[in-house]
Amino acid sequence: MAAILPDLATQVLVPVAAVVGIAFAVGQWVLVSKVKMTAGNKGPGAGAAGKDGASEYLIEEEEGLNEHNVVQKCNEIQNAISEGATSFLFTEYKYVGLFMGIFAVLIFLFLGSVEGFSTKSQPCHYSKDRMCKPALANAIFSTVAFVLGAVTSLVSGFLGMKIATYANARTTLEARKGVGKAFITAFRSGAVMGFLLAASGLVVLYIAINLFGIYYGDDWEGLYEAITGYGLGGSSMALFGRVGGGIYTKAADVGADLVGKVERNIPEDDPRNPAVIADNVGDNVGDIAGMGSDLFGSYAESSCAALVVASISSFGINHEFTPMLYPLLISSVGIIACLITTLFATDFFEIKAVDEIEPALKKQLIISTAVMTVGIALVSWLGLPYSFTIFNFGVQKTVYNWQLFLCVAVGLWAGLIIGFVTEYYTSNAYSPVQDVADSCRTGAATNVIFGLALGYKSVIIPIFAIAFSIFLSFSLAAMYGVAVAALGMLSTIATGLAIDAYGPISDNAGGIAEMAGMSHRIRERTDALDAAGNTTAAIGKGFAIGSAALVSLALFGAFVSRAAISTVDVLTPKVFIGLIVGAMLPYWFSAMTMKSVGSAALKMVEEVRRQFNTIPGLMEGTTKPDYATCVKISTDASIKEMIPPGALVMLTPLIVGIFFGVETLSGLLAGALVSGVQIAISASNTGGAWDNAKKYIEAGASEHARTLGPKGSDCHKAAVIGDTIGDPLKDTSGPSLNILIKLMAVESLVFAPFFATHGGILFKWL
Amino acid sequence: MAAILPDLATQVLVPVAAVVGIAFAVGQWVLVSKVKMTAGNKGPGAGAAGKDGASEYLIEEEEGLNEHNVVQKCNEIQNAISEGATSFLFTEYKYVGLFMGIFAVLIFLFLGSVEGFSTKSQPCHYSKDRMCKPALANAIFSTVAFVLGAVTSLVSGFLGMKIATYANARTTLEARKGVGKAFITAFRSGAVMGFLLAASGLVVLYIAINLFGIYYGDDWEGLYEAITGYGLGGSSMALFGRVGGGIYTKAADVGADLVGKVERNIPEDDPRNPAVIADNVGDNVGDIAGMGSDLFGSYAESSCAALVVASISSFGINHEFTPMLYPLLISSVGIIACLITTLFATDFFEIKAVDEIEPALKKQLIISTAVMTVGIALVSWLGLPYSFTIFNFGVQKTVYNWQLFLCVAVGLWAGLIIGFVTEYYTSNAYSPVQDVADSCRTGAATNVIFGLALGYKSVIIPIFAIAFSIFLSFSLAAMYGVAVAALGMLSTIATGLAIDAYGPISDNAGGIAEMAGMSHRIRERTDALDAAGNTTAAIGKGFAIGSAALVSLALFGAFVSRAAISTVDVLTPKVFIGLIVGAMLPYWFSAMTMKSVGSAALKMVEEVRRQFNTIPGLMEGTTKPDYATCVKISTDASIKEMIPPGALVMLTPLIVGIFFGVETLSGLLAGALVSGVQIAISASNTGGAWDNAKKYIEAGASEHARTLGPKGSDCHKAAVIGDTIGDPLKDTSGPSLNILIKLMAVESLVFAPFFATHGGILFKWL
Repeated sequence: MAAILPDLATQVLVPVAAVVGIAFAVGQWVLVSKVKMTAGNKGPGAGAAGKDGASEYLIEEEEGLNEHNVVQKCNEIQNAISEGATSFLFTEYKYVGLFMGIFAVLIFLFLGSVEGFSTKSQPCHYSKDRMCKPALANAIFSTVAFVLGAVTSLVSGFLGMKIATYANARTTLEARKGVGKAFITAFRSGAVMGFLLAASGLVVLYIAINLFGIYYGDDWEGLYEAITGYGLGGSSMALFGRVGGGIYTKAADVGADLVGKVERNIPEDDPRNPAVIADNVGDNVGDIAGMGSDLFGSYAESSCAALVVASISSFGINHEFTPMLYPLLISSVGIIACLITTLFATDFFEIKAVDEIEPALKKQLIISTAVMTVGIALVSWLGLPYSFTIFNFGVQKTVYNWQLFLCVAVGLWAGLIIGFVTEYYTSNAYSPVQDVADSCRTGAATNVIFGLALGYKSVIIPIFAIAFSIFLSFSLAAMYGVAVAALGMLSTIATGLAIDAYGPISDNAGGIAEMAGMSHRIRERTDALDAAGNTTAAIGKGFAIGSAALVSLALFGAFVSRAAISTVDVLTPKVFIGLIVGAMLPYWFSAMTMKSVGSAALKMVEEVRRQFNTIPGLMEGTTKPDYATCVKISTDASIKEMIPPGALVMLTPLIVGIFFGVETLSGLLAGALVSGVQIAISASNTGGAWDNAKKYIEAGASEHARTLGPKGSDCHKAAVIGDTIGDPLKDTSGPSLNILIKLMAVESLVFAPFFATHGGILFKWL
Repeated sequence: MAAILPDLATQVLVPVAAVVGIAFAVGQWVLVSKVKMTAGNKGPGAGAAGKDGASEYLIEEEEGLNEHNVVQKCNEIQNAISEGATSFLFTEYKYVGLFMGIFAVLIFLFLGSVEGFSTKSQPCHYSKDRMCKPALANAIFSTVAFVLGAVTSLVSGFLGMKIATYANARTTLEARKGVGKAFITAFRSGAVMGFLLAASGLVVLYIAINLFGIYYGDDWEGLYEAITGYGLGGSSMALFGRVGGGIYTKAADVGADLVGKVERNIPEDDPRNPAVIADNVGDNVGDIAGMGSDLFGSYAESSCAALVVASISSFGINHEFTPMLYPLLISSVGIIACLITTLFATDFFEIKAVDEIEPALKKQLIISTAVMTVGIALVSWLGLPYSFTIFNFGVQKTVYNWQLFLCVAVGLWAGLIIGFVTEYYTSNAYSPVQDVADSCRTGAATNVIFGLALGYKSVIIPIFAIAFSIFLSFSLAAMYGVAVAALGMLSTIATGLAIDAYGPISDNAGGIAEMAGMSHRIRERTDALDAAGNTTAAIGKGFAIGSAALVSLALFGAFVSRAAISTVDVLTPKVFIGLIVGAMLPYWFSAMTMKSVGSAALKMVEEVRRQFNTIPGLMEGTTKPDYATCVKISTDASIKEMIPPGALVMLTPLIVGIFFGVETLSGLLAGALVSGVQIAISASNTGGAWDNAKKYIEAGASEHARTLGPKGSDCHKAAVIGDTIGDPLKDTSGPSLNILIKLMAVESLVFAPFFATHGGILFKWL
């Protein structure tokens, strides 16, 4: 029985969806670009502002500020941030490029050596009666796919950064007209990034499959094995992006805050602070470019994991094209679903007050999930035969199309639950963050104790949600089920990225307002956007982590199949030592990244102090600080410090696979997965909660909040300490951990044939 | 081939070793009691003081203080602490007793229902040709063993507390004569506790085996299955002791510090602080009674795990008495080895200066390990046949006696490595703690970031040590190997407990000196003892955690055997969800305990503030504070707050076993084990490092330390914040986690027959 959708339709549908996504991104970008960075232009909708209740006058006009100066200043600052970010990313890419080049050679050599670089075709693993391409071809195409994945990831992150630095000053200028205008600008810019990433990830993968297919012909097994290199490339790039960007942004942030806010008592983002440009650059290279690469990596990996399992299931064996591309169809429909969802935020409704921001973002999550559920049902009905078989560790398991629908849907809805729980624990609209803020009454110590406890507690429900999705999808459709559950969670990636990128853009917009000396009322508006942005950033991280858990398990399953081991029995010494050491790796990795942020921040503190002490007129605002030196410190520190944690993650699977073999490596992957996901969730949420507890006190929006404030009170100082501690947790070590678990899994999968033939030499010697 | 040692010799040797241990403990106690708590008595060795270089005069005499008053005050304070601790423990035991009673009934009902409360004998599981006692007998004897274990644990903790509160003021008084005298008093008192616990644990187990044996006759399988209840009882009691005591001590400590040190600028342990008595009581109920119960639990469980595996191996099947009691022989020799070791601290050498304290304690670890290695070799040579078979998940594996020697020795030496690494990361003699202290220059935030990074990093080597011991012992002698490796690590428990108990005793001694208004020179001496004590406490926790990891794995293995499952395959949905949820449990548990400490501390802060604000003359020292109310707050909070985390740990295996079955439970145990051990180590070490970083700044012993100090400087304030955050990490959540992993494992083992027959009802329904 075949799928209802003809193969030709699939061949058309996937690229069309991608093109629609890209077109939509371009359209949003055009709308954002209408906000002119020259004085005298009130931007789009200025004429209509009166209608929807927003003020007709710009705040400068009311307060009598010179508009021309303000706009020019914004423009200058935006350029400085953009240049800093571009220059950092180029430096980063240079070093990472070298590392990736070496790694590409390793992939080729290791995979080529599996059959001794033989160019002879060989019988396929899973369809023994057919001939498959030689291992050497696999080595070449895996390497090419790896490079392709890395380049796509790099371009994704870079474009995201460009868009964000294009949008931040525009958001500031729009904030003069009202919070709704600013929100739409920031959100549209986020959407540009979201749709561009989702669509380009899809289209590159689609093209690669078709091009590789020309050589591979009917050897689908080899084709999709080679395609997994795409996931590895994407994730490797993401690792360095996250770690390097994370160290950059937090070294600058912590350094700027410790001297500026704590010692000198000047506000955040004050232009007198020498580290302020570095701080704003950091938001773009860490939170935007890093996050973009990261989610692209997850998307690429879950697609690859699903494809590689499908290729050895009935779809692959019987060469059913449409069902084979089911993962890509899901992503295609996801782009359309997110497109509809975006309109709800930008066109169907308008934000008029500060307290409508968070509900609007929450609605985005709900709408995209609801629309996508229908989309999944459609794709599962049209794109799959009624029944088929899925490879399940040596046996073929019969699965029905409605079961696969359930797998994707459970992933999608688990994502929503994770999103809501994250929101509950990190938004200052709810009691957990308010309790943390309240604990500042007795000082920083209780704030930290309560914050850590909050982070630990916030793990419970997400883990149950992940466990339930795994149980259901695993039981229904083995590892293919888990892989498509991950895809389900990521199917609304365009919306997820949009609301996620929106945060740092608002954060930057606030920084620019402060630096340009704009009215504090503008700052209040951007702060409100930013507070919601902290929550959405935490939600984005929640998605990234949740999907990473599912993706890693799917990759892990694919690895085990490819490495030809049938069980991973905890009760064997080889597996158990892998499990316990794997569970330790996230700690080792976090120790490195936290320490890196700490050391880099110390250097930054010294430089900022030096400038305040030696540059006359700096505190008075008559002289400009030396921003460039601070940018250089952050750049140097992050480039230098990203190598050891990066090497730990990239080399561990190689070392374990080569010396201890595939059983120990299996244990290691399982251990890192189940341990890492907990630390990642708790670190992200603890950090988000501290940040918003501080913002809660600063905003003073409720009776309770006012008893704790105002800025500069003892409570507020305690809250600032918590916020500073949370910085590396939520923006460096926490979000890098999900890459750790995914990357080790996909790397093991790519190298599996090598480990299976040549690995475990230590145990062979003994 | 039989063991060289005749059975009769074993029957004599074990109780004799226990009696020697108890006699030694009594002897040490007599020596401590010679320090009279009445004025005018300079105590033992006072006449000889001149000879060994210590001052001939008491400090009071030099400084012209009234000795009579001082001694009387010490006496009063000691009594207050002792009464507070006794009253708390009685309250705690009342509530825990109720819980344990209910749990005992559950054990009886669940195990009895396995064969429907039938009184008929049945064929044995492992020797099918023999008849074994009915399941009902198993239920009755398991329940009795459970109660026995709980009572022994209770008595151990209680006696430890009594000894510590007997010794603390005596240590203070001896500190007048010199640091060496004070050290010996504190250390001897620790030794009383160590030997009493090790010996009583051994003798009760020995008697139980012999008494139960009268009924069981040649049904060794049933006998040792029932004996596992002993481990469960011991650990359940330990859980409540650790959690309740941990909340008590840290609520009081954090509360006292936050108001006293931070707000009122009065020194630690100042008698004007209303929470000071509660704080000192806490040290005794938490660190002493809790730790005693905990290590006793580990000891009982590892013995039970080894015995139950041995009973279904050739020793049990062929009824070889001496090899069967090999675990008890190891413990017996351990008592003798520790006895010799203790003499090195108390009699062979004498401490003359502050900087000799840490090396002396370190020597204790090295000497006991070296002596014990010889002891293990002897026992393995005399107590085991040259070759025998060990049950290994369904098959019998041939093992040689030298292999078993290696298993025990690797555990013992891994313990030493863990001890050294812990010392390196928590002692302020080395760079890690000094770096943390240095990071206080830039405030509390960097202190916390560096401290957390230190804790994460300190996990690496201990995990490798544990993994190596597991791999070796598991490969050589399956689960029996792991169980005896745990016993090896715990074989020097008497010394471990001695150096561990020494810490809180010194801490209390310092508190008493402060409260009694004694010279600050006394306080300096007790502070030096206490700083070393922080490190030894961390080492003790390292041992507790390391051994818990091994014990849990052994119990887990025994559970799997008893539940008749042959593999625990990570790649099955049932197991995987157990694994990931299990890895989450330590976070859930820590969230509860940290939050409890935080809330209880807030209440304490309010009460202390209230007293300072409303009691006239309190700050001036003319009026006495109301200590009793603070004691009551700590008591009430800890009793109320220990129930939810206790219930989480005790009920989770029951719920999972009943509803999800033994596969999911296996995954859960493995997940909790590999995740919990990491958090436990990092939490303990982070806390220890912060405490000693603070002490490093306070002591100002080096050029570097003096640039950070003195007390009251900004650096010092930042260090105090770190110390306060570390309190619940190192004394409440961290050390309770090792009980979590052990207890869930032993509980699963005890209930295994029930789960295997009636469990997993949820999956049966589906």
